[in-house]
Amino acid sequence: MIIIGEKINGAIPSTGKAIKEKNAAFIRDLAIKQTEAGVDFIDVCASVDDDIELETMKWLIDIVQDATDLPIAVDSPNVHTCIESMKYCNKPGLFNSVSLEGDKIDVAFAAIADTKWECVALLNSDKGIPKTAKDRLDVFADLMAKVKEYKIDPARMHIDPLVEMLCTSEDGIAMVTEVIREIKSQYPTIHVTGAVSNISFNLPVRKMVNMGFTVLAMNAGMDSAILDPLNRDLMGIIFATEALLGEDEYCMEYIGAYREGIFGPVK
Amino acid sequence: MIIIGEKINGAIPSTGKAIKEKNAAFIRDLAIKQTEAGVDFIDVCASVDDDIELETMKWLIDIVQDATDLPIAVDSPNVHTCIESMKYCNKPGLFNSVSLEGDKIDVAFAAIADTKWECVALLNSDKGIPKTAKDRLDVFADLMAKVKEYKIDPARMHIDPLVEMLCTSEDGIAMVTEVIREIKSQYPTIHVTGAVSNISFNLPVRKMVNMGFTVLAMNAGMDSAILDPLNRDLMGIIFATEALLGEDEYCMEYIGAYREGIFGPVK
Repeated sequence: MIIIGEKINGAIPSTGKAIKEKNAAFIRDLAIKQTEAGVDFIDVCASVDDDIELETMKWLIDIVQDATDLPIAVDSPNVHTCIESMKYCNKPGLFNSVSLEGDKIDVAFAAIADTKWECVALLNSDKGIPKTAKDRLDVFADLMAKVKEYKIDPARMHIDPLVEMLCTSEDGIAMVTEVIREIKSQYPTIHVTGAVSNISFNLPVRKMVNMGFTVLAMNAGMDSAILDPLNRDLMGIIFATEALLGEDEYCMEYIGAYREGIFGPVK
Repeated sequence: MIIIGEKINGAIPSTGKAIKEKNAAFIRDLAIKQTEAGVDFIDVCASVDDDIELETMKWLIDIVQDATDLPIAVDSPNVHTCIESMKYCNKPGLFNSVSLEGDKIDVAFAAIADTKWECVALLNSDKGIPKTAKDRLDVFADLMAKVKEYKIDPARMHIDPLVEMLCTSEDGIAMVTEVIREIKSQYPTIHVTGAVSNISFNLPVRKMVNMGFTVLAMNAGMDSAILDPLNRDLMGIIFATEALLGEDEYCMEYIGAYREGIFGPVK
């Protein structure tokens, strides 16, 4: 499972406050703690006004790169911000994200095509978020046509099928798991990712829904996720699910992660 | 999900101690707490020496029936104990359990055929626990031949595919989920049950493995389980999974169970 640590995001109140106050120690601590939790990418999202977004991204990226060797996920709704932020990174990371809205994808793919950067792509378009599995897979087909056009290896793509809140769904997550299965069946080497916690908006005891969703999405083929790696229960159930799905012979990874203190009671 | 509350079992040290000391208040409390947690059956298993098993079952059943209106699961490795214990029950419950070992199934089915008792059946035989899905489904076929012979409605059966410890498995739970899917595909009205906690023997932070297993087994078709209903996290993820699987429109059951205090932080 590829884990994208989501903690350094200005939309999270405590992180937003640290960014506003230029509290470098707080950001550094989040980078170190997420590294210790075993993430694969450190997501960096400023979530500030446009006029200071780039300088904030540079400030954040510099702190993170000083604290950890992990690659960075440059995260902004503005692809130009992502492209500029790539330049601050000392190694290829994850471009987060593109979609078929407007000219985003051409701008982004032109910038990453000849690099080793990986890329998150959301399955929405100018028409919004498709309501059915078929429509979402149609967007996926359009997206993959662009991936092919820019000669990007599908293994560099992390497709986000768009996780929506469960509380307004009449049929649970059947549509999303269908989309995940179909994507993995068409492109076995592609990654399917998701912002796990979206599923539980407006519900009590959100961690139960987040954990259940993670297990079912992994079972369908999700192999990447944007989440809080300091949530020990979520990390624990991810390791448990890998073992249950036969991807961790004799539970060696599960036991190892427990011994490293990634989940289980705080010692 | 049909929940069989497992707490009144002499093999659990605290319950065994209460049985030994004839501590009726302790047993009564377990019956009430499990009822409040929303279980469907209260399992009663004496786990004492043969010569006092029946009198202990009667003592336990009398306490439980005085405390709750829920049906009882009469639980013993000895089918004769189960049959005698049925007589102490004031309403039909769950016969736990039969298997194809020896003449168990004929003895048990003769006793329950013309009643409204439901029945747990394990997929082992005189040859032990089958190692492959095919062999386990062969035992299932033999079992269902007996179910037909005794004219028992499959909807009264709870098939336990036998959950074994994950830590010695090379391919996770793929075999068990295959067996569950095939059973439900052959007999859509049949129940598939399991002793959830068996999966996590010898592993740290067992609840992670138990929760992950429960989600995946429910996804495969398990709709009944023998478990600790006072484990709030396990109950929470069961309600979450039902919603995720589309069996709880708009999460009304999930939210209701939370409001009733079945899971979530203790208030």
